[in-house]
Amino acid sequence: MATERPSRLRVFSLNCWGIRFFSQLCTQRYEMIGELLCQEQHDIALLQEVWSERDFLFLKRKLSSSHPYTHYFKSGVIGSGLAVFSRHRIQDALLYQYSLNGYPYMLRHGDWFGGKAVGLVIVDVSGLKAHVYVTHLHAEYSRAQDEYLSHRTVQSWELLQFVRHTSCGADLVVLGGDLNMHPQDLGNRLLRSHTGLRDCYTETDTFDGCEDGHTLIADNHFTKKQDLVPFEKGIRIDYILMKGSQRVTMKCESLSTTKGPVADKPFPYSDHEALTAEFALLHSEDSRQRGSSDTLAVSEQMEVVAEARALVKEGLCQTEALRDKAMHLMFGALLLLLLPLAMAFLPCSCSCSFSTLGLLGAVCMVLLLSGALLYLLFTTHIKVLKETEDQMMLTSNDLQTKLTGCQLSGSSSLDGSPEIQPLSPFKREE
Amino acid sequence: MATERPSRLRVFSLNCWGIRFFSQLCTQRYEMIGELLCQEQHDIALLQEVWSERDFLFLKRKLSSSHPYTHYFKSGVIGSGLAVFSRHRIQDALLYQYSLNGYPYMLRHGDWFGGKAVGLVIVDVSGLKAHVYVTHLHAEYSRAQDEYLSHRTVQSWELLQFVRHTSCGADLVVLGGDLNMHPQDLGNRLLRSHTGLRDCYTETDTFDGCEDGHTLIADNHFTKKQDLVPFEKGIRIDYILMKGSQRVTMKCESLSTTKGPVADKPFPYSDHEALTAEFALLHSEDSRQRGSSDTLAVSEQMEVVAEARALVKEGLCQTEALRDKAMHLMFGALLLLLLPLAMAFLPCSCSCSFSTLGLLGAVCMVLLLSGALLYLLFTTHIKVLKETEDQMMLTSNDLQTKLTGCQLSGSSSLDGSPEIQPLSPFKREE
Repeated sequence: MATERPSRLRVFSLNCWGIRFFSQLCTQRYEMIGELLCQEQHDIALLQEVWSERDFLFLKRKLSSSHPYTHYFKSGVIGSGLAVFSRHRIQDALLYQYSLNGYPYMLRHGDWFGGKAVGLVIVDVSGLKAHVYVTHLHAEYSRAQDEYLSHRTVQSWELLQFVRHTSCGADLVVLGGDLNMHPQDLGNRLLRSHTGLRDCYTETDTFDGCEDGHTLIADNHFTKKQDLVPFEKGIRIDYILMKGSQRVTMKCESLSTTKGPVADKPFPYSDHEALTAEFALLHSEDSRQRGSSDTLAVSEQMEVVAEARALVKEGLCQTEALRDKAMHLMFGALLLLLLPLAMAFLPCSCSCSFSTLGLLGAVCMVLLLSGALLYLLFTTHIKVLKETEDQMMLTSNDLQTKLTGCQLSGSSSLDGSPEIQPLSPFKREE
Repeated sequence: MATERPSRLRVFSLNCWGIRFFSQLCTQRYEMIGELLCQEQHDIALLQEVWSERDFLFLKRKLSSSHPYTHYFKSGVIGSGLAVFSRHRIQDALLYQYSLNGYPYMLRHGDWFGGKAVGLVIVDVSGLKAHVYVTHLHAEYSRAQDEYLSHRTVQSWELLQFVRHTSCGADLVVLGGDLNMHPQDLGNRLLRSHTGLRDCYTETDTFDGCEDGHTLIADNHFTKKQDLVPFEKGIRIDYILMKGSQRVTMKCESLSTTKGPVADKPFPYSDHEALTAEFALLHSEDSRQRGSSDTLAVSEQMEVVAEARALVKEGLCQTEALRDKAMHLMFGALLLLLLPLAMAFLPCSCSCSFSTLGLLGAVCMVLLLSGALLYLLFTTHIKVLKETEDQMMLTSNDLQTKLTGCQLSGSSSLDGSPEIQPLSPFKREE
């Protein structure tokens, strides 16, 4: 039963904070990030917030020897900001842009323009098929009054659905990125419980990094201290998650984070800390380590989905209220539009010049157009929220069926992925 | 080697032409469609252009006994129009909205508002896991000057990528819908060659329907004859495609279409003809029927991808030109905006009232806003086209590697799905 020394895989993840003309010392930091990646020779580097294609191309040139395989995911107005650099051959790539991602009129936040998404690259790691996901979810600007909570929850749902349904043939699965969620936030629990992905921070044998694995810390030169309140010590919002397969067991042997200041450098790599995970890849001894905990897992999945469904419903009510407001704006503008028309034809209009009426009309038209655009926007959001709720309901029903043992197979799935049923109507060959 | 009588699966697909207040005799036709589905008891019915949720709910009520499982896919402003009715339990659903789908300002065509997408339902067919896809691609309004060709090609690419990456664990795969493409159109060849899906029309043992399998025919009461020019006999744009798996062989035993007029009814079901396919599901005798044709298949895949890449590049140039025009509009509006400002401060402005200037300013603002919105729109389109081209390039490279036998495995994939590599760095257990 001897096996060779296990293969290893080193994965790096960093939110690069690469907003040109806004993020501080961008050029110098990309130089540092490039040097780090060249030197450390991680197998796969997952980068977020590489907003400028010029910066991506700089890294691509710099890493052409160490990481010859790369993919830069393009979506939205600015881009998704997601980039993968790999020492192993990238066979295929696929992008799923999240259906909800903030509002275009929230220029101050700007997430909408980023086209947030999850990117998948299929990497041939010495003969193993690795499905590697990189993602970046909508930012949380206020924990107390988080107006994007339902959007982030829908994104978490779409992320887990995408991972569940595209990771089926993989030997190993890695997901890295900035989830913009604390470890026990609903979206995070949803993702872990329904995909079977495990958090490297809780799974690792050894950890070397910031206290509690924080990736936003007060010690970082670029961090605005007010963004951390009330978590003065720091927040963990960047993750590397992983799962093996029936063929391969993934073991996280070590996880490390940067700790703000960088030795011999005047400033950190980014306003986020970078993560590095080292995995041992072993032959799966027991390809289906399932047992009595299955029922427990299904119950947990059901609870989390129920919680998420309630939140999506709440988001739906809020969005319906917003759509109503947009409709009121439209009607208001239409009524206002009648005013210059009436004035133009009524005798009292003599005191108003044609131009005044025109100006008033133009203002009404702008208001009407804005109302119509907002109405369209919120209508699409409502469609997405309803679709998500329907999908959650299907999943709930499916889990319920599993739990009550009504299925023909009578078995339940630990990782939440749809179970392969026996060929009951077929008689096996004799 | 005796096997039991094979299981059967009957699948129905119809574009219902359900545009409320526009499509003729909508209510009556939905009544007829409901009756047909109740009576025929297909296992799965895939409907497109069910634009109104009210009509979907009508069908849901009508089919509650015959087809108790259903999913209505919601996206875009109006919806995706996609609905599935099933006699077998739907376990899960997933939606992928196409990234390119026409232009919002093309109100006359209106596809943009429909949020065209591909929907996947995972259906438990007597213990077999069936991945059933329903889709509707952007319409072709002019074959000679098809301004949406690149959009439809990108949709075909996204469709095939979605099917490839989400059908891995399926026992059987069925795709039905209105592809808005002729059988030998690029997008259709792309889809078939890269997913391994086979066209029921060419595969069926027996066929009963319109000549050459047409689904848009001159004999149909609702068809506008000018839409068929120069294909007076008809066009085949609706399809049912299928593939089996290593466990199950799918055999299309019969395919039929409606033929325009319906017996005892005053008009047809829709302006499209409906398709019904009957499949025999058999145990796969040879799970990997691959051989010398592999190289041929890979060559074909490469050729089709190269053709598609060229078309996407062309689309990219056209969209860049459109973006330039939007930018010119913005600059023009900005310059025009300077005019009232200059007039307000120059001595010659005495002859213009404040209101005239305001009106001019308002017009400029509307032009500026329109230009900005169009600029954003075309920028997102460029991102999508570039992403698609990059993905196609990755696939080309991967196929090239397969073809030249540089891969460790030395094998090639017949259906284009990424090949599972041997665990070369691992020593097998002894």
